[in-house]
Amino acid sequence: MLSRLKYLTAGESHGKGLLGIIDGIPAGLEISESYISAQLYRRQQGHGRGGRMKIETDFAELYTGVRHGESLGSPIGLILQNKDWENWIQKMSADPVEDKIRKVTLPRPGHADLTGVQKFDFDDIRNVLERSSARETAIRVALASVCRKLLKEVGIEVGSRVVQIHSLKDTSPIPEGVSPEGLNEMVDSSPVRCLDKSTEKEMIDVIDKAKADGDSVGGVFEIIATGLPYGLGSHTQWDRKLQARIAESILSINAFKGIEIGMGFDQAGKFGSNVHDEIGHDGEKYIRHSNNAGGIEGGMSNAQPIVIRAVMKPIPTLIKPLRSVDIETKEEKLAHKERTDSCAVPAASIVAESMLCFVLADALLEKFGGDSMNQLKAHMKATSKY
Amino acid sequence: MLSRLKYLTAGESHGKGLLGIIDGIPAGLEISESYISAQLYRRQQGHGRGGRMKIETDFAELYTGVRHGESLGSPIGLILQNKDWENWIQKMSADPVEDKIRKVTLPRPGHADLTGVQKFDFDDIRNVLERSSARETAIRVALASVCRKLLKEVGIEVGSRVVQIHSLKDTSPIPEGVSPEGLNEMVDSSPVRCLDKSTEKEMIDVIDKAKADGDSVGGVFEIIATGLPYGLGSHTQWDRKLQARIAESILSINAFKGIEIGMGFDQAGKFGSNVHDEIGHDGEKYIRHSNNAGGIEGGMSNAQPIVIRAVMKPIPTLIKPLRSVDIETKEEKLAHKERTDSCAVPAASIVAESMLCFVLADALLEKFGGDSMNQLKAHMKATSKY
Amino acid sequence: MLSRLKYLTAGESHGKGLLGIIDGIPAGLEISESYISAQLYRRQQGHGRGGRMKIETDFAELYTGVRHGESLGSPIGLILQNKDWENWIQKMSADPVEDKIRKVTLPRPGHADLTGVQKFDFDDIRNVLERSSARETAIRVALASVCRKLLKEVGIEVGSRVVQIHSLKDTSPIPEGVSPEGLNEMVDSSPVRCLDKSTEKEMIDVIDKAKADGDSVGGVFEIIATGLPYGLGSHTQWDRKLQARIAESILSINAFKGIEIGMGFDQAGKFGSNVHDEIGHDGEKYIRHSNNAGGIEGGMSNAQPIVIRAVMKPIPTLIKPLRSVDIETKEEKLAHKERTDSCAVPAASIVAESMLCFVLADALLEKFGGDSMNQLKAHMKATSKY
Amino acid sequence: MLSRLKYLTAGESHGKGLLGIIDGIPAGLEISESYISAQLYRRQQGHGRGGRMKIETDFAELYTGVRHGESLGSPIGLILQNKDWENWIQKMSADPVEDKIRKVTLPRPGHADLTGVQKFDFDDIRNVLERSSARETAIRVALASVCRKLLKEVGIEVGSRVVQIHSLKDTSPIPEGVSPEGLNEMVDSSPVRCLDKSTEKEMIDVIDKAKADGDSVGGVFEIIATGLPYGLGSHTQWDRKLQARIAESILSINAFKGIEIGMGFDQAGKFGSNVHDEIGHDGEKYIRHSNNAGGIEGGMSNAQPIVIRAVMKPIPTLIKPLRSVDIETKEEKLAHKERTDSCAVPAASIVAESMLCFVLADALLEKFGGDSMNQLKAHMKATSKY
Repeated sequence: MLSRLKYLTAGESHGKGLLGIIDGIPAGLEISESYISAQLYRRQQGHGRGGRMKIETDFAELYTGVRHGESLGSPIGLILQNKDWENWIQKMSADPVEDKIRKVTLPRPGHADLTGVQKFDFDDIRNVLERSSARETAIRVALASVCRKLLKEVGIEVGSRVVQIHSLKDTSPIPEGVSPEGLNEMVDSSPVRCLDKSTEKEMIDVIDKAKADGDSVGGVFEIIATGLPYGLGSHTQWDRKLQARIAESILSINAFKGIEIGMGFDQAGKFGSNVHDEIGHDGEKYIRHSNNAGGIEGGMSNAQPIVIRAVMKPIPTLIKPLRSVDIETKEEKLAHKERTDSCAVPAASIVAESMLCFVLADALLEKFGGDSMNQLKAHMKATSKY
Repeated sequence: MLSRLKYLTAGESHGKGLLGIIDGIPAGLEISESYISAQLYRRQQGHGRGGRMKIETDFAELYTGVRHGESLGSPIGLILQNKDWENWIQKMSADPVEDKIRKVTLPRPGHADLTGVQKFDFDDIRNVLERSSARETAIRVALASVCRKLLKEVGIEVGSRVVQIHSLKDTSPIPEGVSPEGLNEMVDSSPVRCLDKSTEKEMIDVIDKAKADGDSVGGVFEIIATGLPYGLGSHTQWDRKLQARIAESILSINAFKGIEIGMGFDQAGKFGSNVHDEIGHDGEKYIRHSNNAGGIEGGMSNAQPIVIRAVMKPIPTLIKPLRSVDIETKEEKLAHKERTDSCAVPAASIVAESMLCFVLADALLEKFGGDSMNQLKAHMKATSKY
Repeated sequence: MLSRLKYLTAGESHGKGLLGIIDGIPAGLEISESYISAQLYRRQQGHGRGGRMKIETDFAELYTGVRHGESLGSPIGLILQNKDWENWIQKMSADPVEDKIRKVTLPRPGHADLTGVQKFDFDDIRNVLERSSARETAIRVALASVCRKLLKEVGIEVGSRVVQIHSLKDTSPIPEGVSPEGLNEMVDSSPVRCLDKSTEKEMIDVIDKAKADGDSVGGVFEIIATGLPYGLGSHTQWDRKLQARIAESILSINAFKGIEIGMGFDQAGKFGSNVHDEIGHDGEKYIRHSNNAGGIEGGMSNAQPIVIRAVMKPIPTLIKPLRSVDIETKEEKLAHKERTDSCAVPAASIVAESMLCFVLADALLEKFGGDSMNQLKAHMKATSKY
Repeated sequence: MLSRLKYLTAGESHGKGLLGIIDGIPAGLEISESYISAQLYRRQQGHGRGGRMKIETDFAELYTGVRHGESLGSPIGLILQNKDWENWIQKMSADPVEDKIRKVTLPRPGHADLTGVQKFDFDDIRNVLERSSARETAIRVALASVCRKLLKEVGIEVGSRVVQIHSLKDTSPIPEGVSPEGLNEMVDSSPVRCLDKSTEKEMIDVIDKAKADGDSVGGVFEIIATGLPYGLGSHTQWDRKLQARIAESILSINAFKGIEIGMGFDQAGKFGSNVHDEIGHDGEKYIRHSNNAGGIEGGMSNAQPIVIRAVMKPIPTLIKPLRSVDIETKEEKLAHKERTDSCAVPAASIVAESMLCFVLADALLEKFGGDSMNQLKAHMKATSKY
């Protein structure tokens, strides 16, 4: 559930482009196409991407809602054109076309393909795969960068890093004192967005191996947010709980199959006395002797860093053939592709950051209100307790 | 996001009781207090519960929305009275009281306590803990049993089992051909709701050990749903995706810190060719050679069983003392309790089942519409493809 | 659309009673059963009511969400028992009953009866009429009184008066300097809630005439709110506009068939130069030379009083027979009742006030945020411009 | 409240253009840019429009969600470019500009101007008026035309006509047997969209007079929908009632100050026995001897035509000066414009039709479900009762 903010995206992978609208952003937020582009650029990096990422540099046009560098309080609308649209005009035309367009009839396991045609009564899988594509996450990253900027202005930072690709795990801790944006600076230069350089090499190797085999790999990443006040989200009703809202947002990304908060699944194996974060006081404010809760207790931010891990399954588009069935003939056939990404985990971590930005900005505005950035800040100053 | 259904709960742990309203249920659904009670009973079982569970047998009064055994299409309202209210009348009175009521000022690590008083400007932690209590899940189970019944009527079953308590894992597979309700029958008789009898004994032992030490344990459970049509949820917009809606719902439960779907986090360690569920056809319908996706592809149910795992942290109320700070004096003190549950994992699995029931019933009604059960069935018959 | 607040009601007219839950109210609001009862009492008054109103004095039990006189930030739940439940136990039992209960099969024109049975596949109109009854508004008034109290605490008052019953119009202006609560005090003592005493007498006469003829009358009332800050609602998106939210809320009341804001329909007949409210400045703040806009410009409160009029149709339950058709036999028959209200316009004006309270409290919390009353006030102080 | 559908618009009056996204439309709906354009054209007609309407012919590009003439079930995104953008590049640039742009500091009575700058902390009224402009309704008409087409496919038509401009009323009835689309055909050729030719002339004269005086006029129109099944909307909860949803939608349009359903405000002056629509049966289905309820009883469509009237205030942008105050200097000044529309009532009636289309399509999909048009039709066939 989003409370104050709303957003919608539209667009197909090989259509004219993607549209996005976000509604409810306060006025007076400085935002620019170059700021948004920087986030889009981050999403396009990473070892293991196929050709498309390399030829296209995504650019989102600030079409509405911003004037002279600042948000108007009006809905912010973005257009992200597909650069290869000219190659797809016939295949994806909004108007009927005279040419016979070849249908896609072989569903790929792991994709929306088979289910989509059953749900929507299609005889052409293209009608599903075009929207179900990971391409859609580009416009989400663009929209979320508005939220990211808003959070930044009130001292909240969001970052991430990859901690696992295939079986290779980077267990190195984030160096003390490194902020989420500092973390991003460190790992954005890594082709797999991990901290440890020797694991990095192994991760690259396993991606290359997968690629050589026509296969794919997934992984796990960690998303971190700092600077949070007490009390985003609420314990009072099921859909106001912060972890519910985060989980909804993160698991709305294609190919994400799990999320854990703080110590996550490992808490199952511990005694309570080793899990719960003891409370201290440093004379000025409360402190915690650990952060196993990952910054959320009772459905609310507890002023500690939010720490989340999410898992991305291996990309389901494979060169290596998988068994499938033609939806027209019902014949068994082998589904495969000539060319595809073999790993998108680094990019996915940026998408996950973005989804967290939506939720935190929304919960912040819900708690503090404000129609302009000045009002938001004045409200926070009046009542925040750090 | 719920689409067609809405529900709200209200009530404090030691208040008069709990209220719940669910809105959007079709007319003509057979539902009774005894059906609801059976689910409430399931939630009250499990080895490791403290005294309260044993003295109270929860009963939810069908206060509105049902007449002569069938739903009216009107909102269904339930009242679940607290049986020990008479002991709390002064402490929890809605009216001001003359007596000085002792405040709770020592926040328990792992609870909403500290954050709640900061968020809401309280000087008495009781104002937070009363609502943040797991007691609230009782009314959710009661409300969700209406959805469970609806699903059952169209052939969809939801069940669960415990697969881990502390470090003890039950890795035994569900015997072939056992339905979710069959599974429930098997494990409901186990004090830890697991399948394997030797693991059961070890689980009981670790709970007893935790209890003896004044400590607590958490665990992991699996929730399963079968009989689903293609296409609950949708790939078309972020908040319509089934896994997002399930994750939101499941992680809205107190103490839940993670969720995974199908093969979940283990997918990170596999190659794509070993993960994605190959497609076949048995002459009548599509089949799958595996179900690693856990029944959801592209944000939609794919007509395979939905399989989810979720983790519950150890209960944060401990007899063993944890460091804390008095919110009034800012003195460091030790937080502890005289008596509490040491394990609530079996009960939590019932709550998780319930949360899945809400989401599936909602997504089903969104797809098929229908103001009465007959209409829902007629719509499903007209267009479902299994 | 409600943004920050949510509320649901449940209950049938002759069932056990009504339930209501409102979620999102800040902590620290003083509220009591007696405050709520005072509003319920107001709703039960008025010339032209039948027997039921006279025997029953509604009382809403504060079942959840309030402790020692103040809201907890938790959902506030109310129970309003039906006092004549004992006479309806068989007819309205949630459980199946052995006795044959006579079905209602003659739909009353103007009611939900015919449409309801068609929509929900019923063969007994009672299944519809029990929920579609105006009785449901009692719990709305009770819930809304929490919002009314919240508004009052920040200087916003809501009042109303009847301006027309049947063809009798009270065109007298509200005396200068009289606040909405002052207005309520003046008209609450009138059996038809109007200001002008000679019109009052005529209104009573026409109600009596209607009653004598077995007929019914409707009317028009004015709802007024003062003390509003600039900028509740927003011009930026269709469903954020204040007048849309008010219209939705007011027209959600049974029997309401129209609403107008400020000069309303009369604006159609004027030139623009005679309608729009010219702007001045008194040295401290902007002033208006008129308030034809009724306090709303561009979808936002403009710091002038909000003035709304709404029309209630004559009660459709009549002693005088109307033509109808038995849904079982399809025979033409005459629908009529032995006893009923002949006018409910005064009561309806209280319900309309209540609906406005929901919307204004919601829009206020959306703009200013705040988890406690102190926070709300601190935020308002920091940024309100009157 | 919209239930199944969601839509957002974005864009400023003199910005690059308008964006719109509608989400939740079933697959397989035939829709084209020319169909949408035809509705946009209707909105641009009418006597009394200023220059802009004449130079610009609006065109909405089908940017997403439609392929080869049919909807994909994906969100449908539209782009409507502003043709005079090149004249506004500096004034409305998303990027900061070097040139000093003159601020608008004189708020126009009746507009969002004064309230908007107070709400959002602006010192330039342009930041408000650009979004608060009636221009935004163009993209709503475009989006709603998708809903209009959907309704048409299942036999539901929506039309409108002007019944009053200034004090001139067209009281002529719609000729028997004329459908809403037939009505549109009749009145679309009239410069004031009214039926009666002598009233038409008088309406034109009063518009011309207003124009000559630098003044403006408003009016009233009637919106009609036919072909509705029983039971769109519901009596069961406040925000499910059809009239509430319609009122919210219609009153979300700029300058609309009132709405009435069926006999509307005139019901106040009648006895119940003269208002409520008596029920008959023609051997096949129920009939009504009148339609004073305007097609809605108990919050549900009753299978009769929906009849709504709404009032539009005179356009608040005037050549004739109105008193105002400069927001920078606080000096009293006269607000006026060199050129503007003097009447937009005919155009507004098309916008109102459009808003009704959103609500009816949404309520239809809520009741009948369906992911494709074929499914929707199959569900309707299975359970509709006409």
